[in-house]
Amino acid sequence: MRVAVLGYGTIGRGVCEIIMNPVTSYTNRMSISHIWIRKGKEKILPEMCDDFNIILEDKTVDVVVEVLGGLEPAHTMIIEALKAGKHVVTANKKVTAMYLQEFLDVAKENNVQFLFEATTGGGIPWIRSVEKVKRIDKISDFHGIFNGTTNYILDRMYKDGSEFDDVLKQAQKLGYAEHDPSADIDGVDVANKLQITTSLAYDCIAPADFPVFGIRTITKTDIDYFREKDQVVKLTAEAKVQGEFLSCCVEPVVFSKDSMEASVPDNFNLGSVTGTTIGELKFYGQGAGKLPTGNAIVQDIIDIMEGEEETAFDFSKDVKFCYNKVIKNYVLRTTATEEDIRSVFGSHVKTAEVFHGNVYYTIEEVSTLTLHEGVKELQKMDELLFVARLNQG
Amino acid sequence: MRVAVLGYGTIGRGVCEIIMNPVTSYTNRMSISHIWIRKGKEKILPEMCDDFNIILEDKTVDVVVEVLGGLEPAHTMIIEALKAGKHVVTANKKVTAMYLQEFLDVAKENNVQFLFEATTGGGIPWIRSVEKVKRIDKISDFHGIFNGTTNYILDRMYKDGSEFDDVLKQAQKLGYAEHDPSADIDGVDVANKLQITTSLAYDCIAPADFPVFGIRTITKTDIDYFREKDQVVKLTAEAKVQGEFLSCCVEPVVFSKDSMEASVPDNFNLGSVTGTTIGELKFYGQGAGKLPTGNAIVQDIIDIMEGEEETAFDFSKDVKFCYNKVIKNYVLRTTATEEDIRSVFGSHVKTAEVFHGNVYYTIEEVSTLTLHEGVKELQKMDELLFVARLNQG
Repeated sequence: MRVAVLGYGTIGRGVCEIIMNPVTSYTNRMSISHIWIRKGKEKILPEMCDDFNIILEDKTVDVVVEVLGGLEPAHTMIIEALKAGKHVVTANKKVTAMYLQEFLDVAKENNVQFLFEATTGGGIPWIRSVEKVKRIDKISDFHGIFNGTTNYILDRMYKDGSEFDDVLKQAQKLGYAEHDPSADIDGVDVANKLQITTSLAYDCIAPADFPVFGIRTITKTDIDYFREKDQVVKLTAEAKVQGEFLSCCVEPVVFSKDSMEASVPDNFNLGSVTGTTIGELKFYGQGAGKLPTGNAIVQDIIDIMEGEEETAFDFSKDVKFCYNKVIKNYVLRTTATEEDIRSVFGSHVKTAEVFHGNVYYTIEEVSTLTLHEGVKELQKMDELLFVARLNQG
Repeated sequence: MRVAVLGYGTIGRGVCEIIMNPVTSYTNRMSISHIWIRKGKEKILPEMCDDFNIILEDKTVDVVVEVLGGLEPAHTMIIEALKAGKHVVTANKKVTAMYLQEFLDVAKENNVQFLFEATTGGGIPWIRSVEKVKRIDKISDFHGIFNGTTNYILDRMYKDGSEFDDVLKQAQKLGYAEHDPSADIDGVDVANKLQITTSLAYDCIAPADFPVFGIRTITKTDIDYFREKDQVVKLTAEAKVQGEFLSCCVEPVVFSKDSMEASVPDNFNLGSVTGTTIGELKFYGQGAGKLPTGNAIVQDIIDIMEGEEETAFDFSKDVKFCYNKVIKNYVLRTTATEEDIRSVFGSHVKTAEVFHGNVYYTIEEVSTLTLHEGVKELQKMDELLFVARLNQG
């Protein structure tokens, strides 16, 4: 199995390290034939080239691994590779969320595979596990912690009693957070992963516009407020079937301290999926990093090599996405006046509690839609407000 | 895919329920053709028979599911089914631990498969996941909570502050524990599962005689003693590579309250496996029960149906099992005199602490072998002693 890797960042290096140092009969049968790098970058390995045509025209290349990140040139290169009859494996959640259907269609036309295990949950076999659950069961819901950066930040804030900005700087220093951390802390990265898993779990092309609230505004005081109640906040993605409707969202969620979710440390991920007969399954592991994510990519290459049965992706179902069917309880910390809050949430506002000079309101039995629209209204008065859902098991 | 089920207990009913009520294109292609029950039992379904030859001679039967439990007639029937050219899928850990090599050999000779996902971790895709990790990595260790009954007992003791005997009775009433609970509470059931996973993870036939200590003697006071230190006890199986040696054991382990293991509720299981590049993966789910275990069996049947690449089991490695290489710390509660304890454990005895009239000793930097041999000595003086390993991450 001859592999060409597009990009030589963290994950690209991981893929090369695993394939160049094989310890099993599977990885022994692979080799790196090309590493594509951008023009002007130094070619530090003999496999490196900056001309993609060399890879497209090399008939001995079986698989192209795309680990460039971002939309372009990733999108164009994936399409060209598929059209050239190469299987494509990617870790790029952004381009996969945006173009999943196109990639799968072009792959099918050219009788090759497009695999994307590494897009969600890093080294965790999440995508394959969801596919496996679907062989027997209907999935009633899935949820999880799918962003290592924000889990690291929330875990350090909880364990060290630090402020958000200090931990973010520390995370950037350690390479856990990007220079511009927006995609992570605003929930955009998680939203891409949620979109991918939703498409897969429910046989549809999931929309990109579901409600998202990140952790940019969380404070040490918020963490302490929940700590006093034996609760821990985690940034969570969720998809839930309610009758004939499907609801998805990305929100900070407050878990009981003794839950599995609350125990997820550092930059680890935890994905949960519930099926009719299997009940709840949870999958835990490194959500990012050179070798774990590289491992997920190499697992996809092995599936191709072993001719494993291709998943028959079917995105034709007319799933009704609806955000006012799932009813939950929330905690809102804001400096907006109680009058303003009541004008937005009406009788859903149940209790108000003062903690270290902040006021925390419970907003009860409210739909995802009402909550997120109300929050947007209140952000006009208090852009630093924070809201989190109470986990109801 | 025509399936014959041997046995119609909890799991047999689960398999039939899933196959007879298909909701996917996979289960739609299966049917139950025979259910074998013991002579004299009432035939409540048209598929039932008590003559195994009918199944062996029915050329339309593709897969035989063995869910009888115990060694015989399970062993004989599995061998006969394989020799008759039927694939065999089992949930029976006892017979699989004892005869794994024979089953795989006979399956190979007859060009059929012997699959056993349901033997370990109930509905959790544990066996397949360990196999998958091995496609790329060496496994440095695996461990986990693989017995739902004891986890239920320990969880209720912790959460309700109940005594062992009361919770055991409650578990028996709920059907979580057998009338004779020895196999569960003495760690024998976990030991079978450890033996199966060890054979698989390390390409060898694992011996059955590794050190085992169960939870029969744990008391409410023990639970409270650890609770005061923010610790939770779980019955755990472990296999660990130390240089060229492999060490396995079943022991109660004391985890920090904020660990994933401590959070495992009710009769759930949690398996962890660590590989070179993937790092640590954890798999959580229902470790027993009609539908989850039935689901694991049906997953095996789908793998056969889909012609998934058969795992090339290789038990030929000369693995050196050795129990005096892994050094750990333990807590021992006993009424034996300090002189007796010191005569057994010497300078490994570090501290003694009195809690509610019991004395708890720490036995530090001691090998598995020394610990278990010492415990056996002390049991002659105090058969109700309790020992647990301190988890060191």
